[in-house]
Amino acid sequence: MRVTQRVHKILDNYNSDNPGTKANLARMLCTGRLGGTGKLVILPVDQGFEHGPVRSFAPNPAGYDPVYHAQLAVDAGLNAYASALGMIEAVADQYAAQIPLILKMNSSNTLYRSSEAPTQAITASVDDAVRLGCAAIGYTIYPGSDEAFNMLNDLRELIREAKSKGLAAIVWSYPRGGALSKEGELAVDIDAYAAHIAALMGAHIIKVKLPTDFIEQDEAKKVYQKENINIATQADRVRHIVQAVFNGKRLVIFSGGAMKGADSVYQDAQDIYDGGGNGQIIGRNTFQRPREQALEMLDRIIGIFLGKVRHGAVAQAAE
Amino acid sequence: MRVTQRVHKILDNYNSDNPGTKANLARMLCTGRLGGTGKLVILPVDQGFEHGPVRSFAPNPAGYDPVYHAQLAVDAGLNAYASALGMIEAVADQYAAQIPLILKMNSSNTLYRSSEAPTQAITASVDDAVRLGCAAIGYTIYPGSDEAFNMLNDLRELIREAKSKGLAAIVWSYPRGGALSKEGELAVDIDAYAAHIAALMGAHIIKVKLPTDFIEQDEAKKVYQKENINIATQADRVRHIVQAVFNGKRLVIFSGGAMKGADSVYQDAQDIYDGGGNGQIIGRNTFQRPREQALEMLDRIIGIFLGKVRHGAVAQAAE
Amino acid sequence: MRVTQRVHKILDNYNSDNPGTKANLARMLCTGRLGGTGKLVILPVDQGFEHGPVRSFAPNPAGYDPVYHAQLAVDAGLNAYASALGMIEAVADQYAAQIPLILKMNSSNTLYRSSEAPTQAITASVDDAVRLGCAAIGYTIYPGSDEAFNMLNDLRELIREAKSKGLAAIVWSYPRGGALSKEGELAVDIDAYAAHIAALMGAHIIKVKLPTDFIEQDEAKKVYQKENINIATQADRVRHIVQAVFNGKRLVIFSGGAMKGADSVYQDAQDIYDGGGNGQIIGRNTFQRPREQALEMLDRIIGIFLGKVRHGAVAQAAE
Amino acid sequence: MRVTQRVHKILDNYNSDNPGTKANLARMLCTGRLGGTGKLVILPVDQGFEHGPVRSFAPNPAGYDPVYHAQLAVDAGLNAYASALGMIEAVADQYAAQIPLILKMNSSNTLYRSSEAPTQAITASVDDAVRLGCAAIGYTIYPGSDEAFNMLNDLRELIREAKSKGLAAIVWSYPRGGALSKEGELAVDIDAYAAHIAALMGAHIIKVKLPTDFIEQDEAKKVYQKENINIATQADRVRHIVQAVFNGKRLVIFSGGAMKGADSVYQDAQDIYDGGGNGQIIGRNTFQRPREQALEMLDRIIGIFLGKVRHGAVAQAAE
Amino acid sequence: MRVTQRVHKILDNYNSDNPGTKANLARMLCTGRLGGTGKLVILPVDQGFEHGPVRSFAPNPAGYDPVYHAQLAVDAGLNAYASALGMIEAVADQYAAQIPLILKMNSSNTLYRSSEAPTQAITASVDDAVRLGCAAIGYTIYPGSDEAFNMLNDLRELIREAKSKGLAAIVWSYPRGGALSKEGELAVDIDAYAAHIAALMGAHIIKVKLPTDFIEQDEAKKVYQKENINIATQADRVRHIVQAVFNGKRLVIFSGGAMKGADSVYQDAQDIYDGGGNGQIIGRNTFQRPREQALEMLDRIIGIFLGKVRHGAVAQAAE
Repeated sequence: MRVTQRVHKILDNYNSDNPGTKANLARMLCTGRLGGTGKLVILPVDQGFEHGPVRSFAPNPAGYDPVYHAQLAVDAGLNAYASALGMIEAVADQYAAQIPLILKMNSSNTLYRSSEAPTQAITASVDDAVRLGCAAIGYTIYPGSDEAFNMLNDLRELIREAKSKGLAAIVWSYPRGGALSKEGELAVDIDAYAAHIAALMGAHIIKVKLPTDFIEQDEAKKVYQKENINIATQADRVRHIVQAVFNGKRLVIFSGGAMKGADSVYQDAQDIYDGGGNGQIIGRNTFQRPREQALEMLDRIIGIFLGKVRHGAVAQAAE
Repeated sequence: MRVTQRVHKILDNYNSDNPGTKANLARMLCTGRLGGTGKLVILPVDQGFEHGPVRSFAPNPAGYDPVYHAQLAVDAGLNAYASALGMIEAVADQYAAQIPLILKMNSSNTLYRSSEAPTQAITASVDDAVRLGCAAIGYTIYPGSDEAFNMLNDLRELIREAKSKGLAAIVWSYPRGGALSKEGELAVDIDAYAAHIAALMGAHIIKVKLPTDFIEQDEAKKVYQKENINIATQADRVRHIVQAVFNGKRLVIFSGGAMKGADSVYQDAQDIYDGGGNGQIIGRNTFQRPREQALEMLDRIIGIFLGKVRHGAVAQAAE
Repeated sequence: MRVTQRVHKILDNYNSDNPGTKANLARMLCTGRLGGTGKLVILPVDQGFEHGPVRSFAPNPAGYDPVYHAQLAVDAGLNAYASALGMIEAVADQYAAQIPLILKMNSSNTLYRSSEAPTQAITASVDDAVRLGCAAIGYTIYPGSDEAFNMLNDLRELIREAKSKGLAAIVWSYPRGGALSKEGELAVDIDAYAAHIAALMGAHIIKVKLPTDFIEQDEAKKVYQKENINIATQADRVRHIVQAVFNGKRLVIFSGGAMKGADSVYQDAQDIYDGGGNGQIIGRNTFQRPREQALEMLDRIIGIFLGKVRHGAVAQAAE
Repeated sequence: MRVTQRVHKILDNYNSDNPGTKANLARMLCTGRLGGTGKLVILPVDQGFEHGPVRSFAPNPAGYDPVYHAQLAVDAGLNAYASALGMIEAVADQYAAQIPLILKMNSSNTLYRSSEAPTQAITASVDDAVRLGCAAIGYTIYPGSDEAFNMLNDLRELIREAKSKGLAAIVWSYPRGGALSKEGELAVDIDAYAAHIAALMGAHIIKVKLPTDFIEQDEAKKVYQKENINIATQADRVRHIVQAVFNGKRLVIFSGGAMKGADSVYQDAQDIYDGGGNGQIIGRNTFQRPREQALEMLDRIIGIFLGKVRHGAVAQAAE
Repeated sequence: MRVTQRVHKILDNYNSDNPGTKANLARMLCTGRLGGTGKLVILPVDQGFEHGPVRSFAPNPAGYDPVYHAQLAVDAGLNAYASALGMIEAVADQYAAQIPLILKMNSSNTLYRSSEAPTQAITASVDDAVRLGCAAIGYTIYPGSDEAFNMLNDLRELIREAKSKGLAAIVWSYPRGGALSKEGELAVDIDAYAAHIAALMGAHIIKVKLPTDFIEQDEAKKVYQKENINIATQADRVRHIVQAVFNGKRLVIFSGGAMKGADSVYQDAQDIYDGGGNGQIIGRNTFQRPREQALEMLDRIIGIFLGKVRHGAVAQAAE
């Protein structure tokens, strides 16, 4: 595994970490076709927990088999593969040496009824990640939820343990619950805040959703206006989020959301690239498509992150 | 104990587990008259906790004595015997070498009043299973309950400890509580979801109820219709559940439910067999019958799972 | 200490326990005038916690002194003495070698206001029992209480620790709270259920109250009628409870309740003896009487359990 | 340090404790001008937590300095000095060898709003007491509070740990909250019950308030009347409380309450002495007076407990 | 690092601490331009957690980068730099040897909705502080909050662990929640009480806000009037707070609050100096100004604490 100068530079931002953790970060940054570029495309398969097996896998029934996904990630030349305990156990023996595995530590499900205090069950432990040869743990927080502080308390312990055992930590930061409006969940101020909280918690890689230009909090709106902060285009907003994660000293990647048209997926990738984001985490949009279509889509996304392909018009306002 | 090719193939699906756990899975798969076939019939006696001693054992008072059940499981040539701590302690010294024992870790009871947050007390520990020479732990979850996340949190720790100590883990996944309708508890979408959650939690063997063709969740109903998923017969639905447990890479067995006519019990076995399920867990229908009747019934069920006996008409729609 | 054949036979029912625990069971079974018979009479002094010192000891002020009770138990030739931490600490140095001590691990008190979720404070630890040379721990559960599952969770840990440290475990199983009616607390179906739960939790000795012939739960009533279960006399009901504790493979003793006439106390003993119960735990009825009266009463009770004395008419229906 | 026969006799009541704990009890009983008599006068300074610094120390501003109090206790020839963590840390290095220190483990404060479930924060650990060279821990319980069982659960662990580390344990038992009436907090039946609970929890020294002749609980009232219990004078009631702590086999001391006239303070001391109590714990009445007045008051109190000085008339009814 | 006589005298007040903790206190007291004077100016950057990144850093976008703040603290010659886990991790490798780092252990955020039970998430552990080479931990309590006791319980454990590992402990004591009025949060009686609680919890350095002359509690008001306590000027109130922290035997520093005019900031510094406080903790007022303005402001504040510069008129009433 060749560690490029670009990756060495990124690792310098994590110089308080021990060699084991930095090596696992390097593994994710140096695996696959984007290896060495500082860009990441990760395949997450946590939909089975979140929406059940039928909604997740019936559109492409090959996905009922855990091996399908790990092999898809390898064949597409991705940086890493993330899933829940049972799914990772089903592939770790065969794939841990082929592609960095990310063990998702907590999960929600749609059988559990919703509330103003959304939370998740913790479904795996750091020692599971260690025994399964994973490179990182993954953990979701819901900033704004009435359960948010408990989720942070649990994250603190998991992230501390992961670091002490040479693993990297990736935080999915999804604002919801409490007094947040539905529109506010994707508001740019809230998304920046959520990304910043994950960075403050010590996450190595932060995963947020692509924000809208809505602003949720009045106190924040005043600042956006007074300081004339540019959030007009999606690329601008990516750039703003990058600033929120220690001015780009933490890796930040964006999720693709629900299954949607391929054009929209490529545009997201292009905007992330243009805004200086570190990559994309893309699940349903690939594993719910037939394998050949998925490989084709991932090939094009990787092309965008390699800077070899451009999608759509360059967002002028972002320049 | 001869480990057949069929069993070796099944164990390959568990290759992230350590040798101790795989050996205990093999013990269950290679014990009794179904030994080596990949099929399992297990005797569970947890009714005393759930319904009290009188409702459980008065119909066949020999069952008040814990030794009765262990001996019944041995004499019938079953794969394993499952019960609560006190019942297992009463037989472990004598039977642990004769038949794999499964220590049920949690239990509910009908003295505890019901609520939208049903849960169970944890009544045994993994170290109890170890000291009593058990092959596996058993644990019930109630997906959908307002207490479901706490049950998953506890299961995570128990399953992790069991694996680290060389035991197998069996999860009883029974949806209930929360916003689930009564009919929804047996709905096919919910049952598949419940089986999938157990698989994601890292269960080696998953136990669910045989589902009806009712569909509880609107989002799921759309997918069943769009993808034209076949759930018409009971065997079809078994096949669907098998898919939900990693496309059959996890063992799934089905429970017999309340005492009912023998014909109905045999039909269940036949449908499980036809749908590719791994077996049956059958309690009240055997231990509440006189011993000779119970042995006769289990003999016939085993015959069905050996493929030597057919019951009723083959469900045509399932072909 | 001579271990009789009768005691060896009883110990065979506990053969999953380690030698330390079996030795402590044997100590209780072989101490005092009933030593070796398989019968037990135990003096419990937990009234100070439950009702305060004045209601407990003012009727016989000698009882304010903890030494009084331990000496009474020794002088009466009882099998064991049970009390709370402070009371046991006050006598352990002097009496641990003279009579088996039982450390009561939890207690309620009448200063705490009642609710539908009755519970108790845990007031001692297993290590206290070990350092004080006790033979057993005692723990109360309230099956039916909205706090019952938490009490079982705590009991699980205490009983596991006690067994691992060579102690025996005695469970006081008193149904109350939740949806139980007041009359139901002593109902025969509930009492059998409560005794069975204690057995399933792994208790070595189970203590319940003598039940009435009332039946609380409709589902149970059907079975009592259908199976024509004989619960007419108190001795019949004792026999029924014995069945509920693994068909007599667990020791079961009965409590005497509030201070009452001597005749009633003797009748209880006789019924327990006739029904095959293992003995009596008798507190207020002895320590609230003057010492000489108490010794006389205990002498007669022991006579009944030795089969040397009969009290009242034999309950004909029980034959 | 000379251990008198009187002290040896008291220590015999604690013969289940290890030598370290007995040595620390002996240190408290043998320090100061009352050393060796079996009587104790202790200076507690926990008012800062309970009422804030201004209400506590402004009347005698020298008391803002923690050293002032430790020196006062030494100069007055008291048995021990008790305070919260920060106050003890401020003097331990200098005073731990001069006078036994008691580390108060929990505290309330008047910023916290009151409820029917009063409780306290636990503000120090047993290991703090060990590292600071303390002789004992102190802990407050509120029998009757809806939080009482949690307080007892915490006390159980602290007292067990203290004993295992050779420390003594002092319990402040103050009934309040729940269904208790305001008048009932000082009722003689409740005070005796509270003292008894502390003894049952394993306290070496019990601290309660001087009770009134009010009786709170109806069930208790019947016994006081039936058994004709003498609670007419304050000395009678002290004698009654002494009975409630294992007939005097546990040390019991009484608190002085809010700042009041010197005459009233002396009368309390005299009544405690006459009733056979083991001493007084006196805070605000001394540290809120100028140092010379405080020393004079403590000199007189010590005189009363030495039996050299009598205050007021002997309460005739108490004879 | 030269430890002056002044610092040695301060360290004498902490003589129950171990050498490691005292060395870390000395490091903070002897670093920077105020080194050796007993005065402290600390830069805290916890606004990102509390108000989000935009409100915190957009006014001076250089502050998005964690390194900016650490370098500002070094260049201004401050005593220490405090921030949350992620921010400290981003600079520890480079700065831990240059300036004492304080790891803030808990944080709130404005996404979490407010209540009468305000609290914070615990976002770092003591072992994090150790591995990152920090000199101290920082922890916020909210005296008065319905969650205050839980915050104190957590603080107890953190402070104990910090001391056992040779770190110093700084407590931010901010009254709020519960029954406190909004005006009461800054009331002089409440502020003194909050400072005292922090001292009692064992804090080495206490950080409170500068109080107003409002008095919240009636019982306290009586004492202020009766004892004629001087709280007229801000310097008087500082002097009063100093008294509340063991008569000055604990270090107490004051926060600057929200961004405000420079004159007001200097006046605060002057009043703290005049009242005998130990220094200032000043965040937004410096890092939200351009770097040169911030350095200029900090230079002047340091001048005031060195006694070389006076700001405004001396508050006559305070003399």
